[in-house]
Amino acid sequence: MENFTYCNPTKIIFGKNTIAQLDELIEPEAKILFLYGFGSIKKNGVYQQAMKALKNRKVIEFANIEPNPTYETCIKAIELGRKEKIDFILAVGGGSVLDASKFIAAGIKYKDDDLWQIVTSRGSVVTSAIPIGTVLTLPATGSEMNRWSVMSKSSTKEKLSFGSEHTYPKFSILDPETTYSLDKKQIRNGIVDTFVHAVEQYATIDLNTPLQDRYAISILQTLVELAPSLMSDKKDYDAYASFMWTATQAQNGLLGCGVRLDWSTHGIGHELTAFFGLAHAETLAIVLPALWKYELDNKCKKLAKIARQVFNVTEGDEKQQANTAIMKTSAFFNSIQMPTTLAHYNIKKADIQQVVDRFAERGSSIGENQDIDAKAVEKILKMCL
Amino acid sequence: MENFTYCNPTKIIFGKNTIAQLDELIEPEAKILFLYGFGSIKKNGVYQQAMKALKNRKVIEFANIEPNPTYETCIKAIELGRKEKIDFILAVGGGSVLDASKFIAAGIKYKDDDLWQIVTSRGSVVTSAIPIGTVLTLPATGSEMNRWSVMSKSSTKEKLSFGSEHTYPKFSILDPETTYSLDKKQIRNGIVDTFVHAVEQYATIDLNTPLQDRYAISILQTLVELAPSLMSDKKDYDAYASFMWTATQAQNGLLGCGVRLDWSTHGIGHELTAFFGLAHAETLAIVLPALWKYELDNKCKKLAKIARQVFNVTEGDEKQQANTAIMKTSAFFNSIQMPTTLAHYNIKKADIQQVVDRFAERGSSIGENQDIDAKAVEKILKMCL
Repeated sequence: MENFTYCNPTKIIFGKNTIAQLDELIEPEAKILFLYGFGSIKKNGVYQQAMKALKNRKVIEFANIEPNPTYETCIKAIELGRKEKIDFILAVGGGSVLDASKFIAAGIKYKDDDLWQIVTSRGSVVTSAIPIGTVLTLPATGSEMNRWSVMSKSSTKEKLSFGSEHTYPKFSILDPETTYSLDKKQIRNGIVDTFVHAVEQYATIDLNTPLQDRYAISILQTLVELAPSLMSDKKDYDAYASFMWTATQAQNGLLGCGVRLDWSTHGIGHELTAFFGLAHAETLAIVLPALWKYELDNKCKKLAKIARQVFNVTEGDEKQQANTAIMKTSAFFNSIQMPTTLAHYNIKKADIQQVVDRFAERGSSIGENQDIDAKAVEKILKMCL
Repeated sequence: MENFTYCNPTKIIFGKNTIAQLDELIEPEAKILFLYGFGSIKKNGVYQQAMKALKNRKVIEFANIEPNPTYETCIKAIELGRKEKIDFILAVGGGSVLDASKFIAAGIKYKDDDLWQIVTSRGSVVTSAIPIGTVLTLPATGSEMNRWSVMSKSSTKEKLSFGSEHTYPKFSILDPETTYSLDKKQIRNGIVDTFVHAVEQYATIDLNTPLQDRYAISILQTLVELAPSLMSDKKDYDAYASFMWTATQAQNGLLGCGVRLDWSTHGIGHELTAFFGLAHAETLAIVLPALWKYELDNKCKKLAKIARQVFNVTEGDEKQQANTAIMKTSAFFNSIQMPTTLAHYNIKKADIQQVVDRFAERGSSIGENQDIDAKAVEKILKMCL
């Protein structure tokens, strides 16, 4: 096991009818910047529940935060927050709204004119931030219980992550009933995102971390078990609740304690979103199987364990089981109506080059062995066609 | 799943050579009350490492904190801390020193003369505490990453727990190499304590919490897997590291999220320590198998899962498997030289009555169904003879 530091101060308030607790969680005199997306929270009643709980507090709304939130949008929110001298940010929505809230919270306090430095420095220039609270409505990114934010810059087609000890939410309210109104595509995306968060921290170098390994496998087993219920039309509270908690657990830092992390599927996936506009989870479902094929020798032992422990495979030697894990993972994604090829989105061989060029420009390699360079990305993406 | 709130702000610094980080973790001008036990930390070099890291800080030492730390001892530390106007507590040792530090931290700040109220109120009267940092040397209680403290009062033979949001350690340093000098009895106690922490949160009412259930099973599987290596003479870093992290995980609140908790084995066990002086883990190993026999019908499904998933039992129906789980758990404890009967400690049938009387005096029941009253305690303890 490697040395590690772990600290996650976010307070989680989990369960039915918990949005009303906003009243206890936010100071009565706070001036709040209330962030949300395109208004689905008005249709499912979450907006109304939150506003009721906030009582007579001064609330400034900022809506229309897009999926893969952009620097350009967030700058407007930062200007508004500065002008209004807000002292608390309430982010209500999915990972995009929550990620945006972290950039806005750090941005309002940041002294330099070039706010994109917050992202390019990976958060190291952040020395303070407006306190954030969140009401999560889409289980997927884990942003509700971590420091991380992924920001996109439309003008340069960049998509990069940053995080700081100042950007943990002070609290996050997770009411599973708010997720009843999600459509199948959102649920499917959340399942895939959570699955890939777990495997990027599991299917990597074996450093003798049996507990962390079992936690990751627990997440995968739970997702595979819950998926049919989540993708059906019934609203099974316990299934939605476990899904919500599983998504949070997959990306709150716990699985990665003492582990060498991969994150290459995310690294390549972010570029597919930046260049072609695919949803985050859609990119992961395409890249992961191909990346695993490319890294088969390195990841063989862990992939074979996924085959045995998640998909109950008993036949074959380790290498055959590793291949079966890749096949079963793709089949699992397909079973929840998630495509696993670039072809599905009409992305062709010639389109790949711009992504490869970006990795070549950066000159750095990714993955737990730092062996995935531009050349490797090209090979992997060709396997995704 | 039940509603829950979870927040654990303790910063964990885990790994080799991490004690030196005390210098960064504690303010240079802090006046420190340095708590420890009977000096084993001087023999294994932990004391020296800590003192070196503390550099020229003002350090007031308070030693000889006993296993099952007493009110009487802690009062002396509180008086010293008040007199010296200390502003930070560093607890170096196992769960007893850490638990004591929480009472001392709250006690120094407590305004009322009757400090035992801190315990009898279960911590609800605590409104502030001196900040605590810890260096853990014995994986077992989880005190390094939770709010809880178990205090004993010699004069009345009471042993009770309390906790407050103010008694989380600010940080805990977990260097697995500090545990190399533990003797087999201490290791054995730590394994049993950790095992019982996990099952008190797992073998309870099934509330459809698949992820929490899998996490608990992961802890049990890891303990059973590691035990032979830990009980051997070899010093396998990864085994000690995983043991240390597993013990922390078993009692940092995570397993209990959304779960109805049991804690009746602890409740009865505490009285066995209070009346007969047994080590905490020794009491748990005696009570657990008997309590499971008594609660067999209620816990049948979960116990059968322990049989199948932890002890690889494939034969028998659910009830038979539940019985096998009890037998296998006792056998596991015995395999690490942990006795499972009162007879081993020469405690006889007539001795039980005083324990039963205490439960009768209190008049309240324990366990996840609140069905274990004095009568039940009597039956369970008779099964422990």
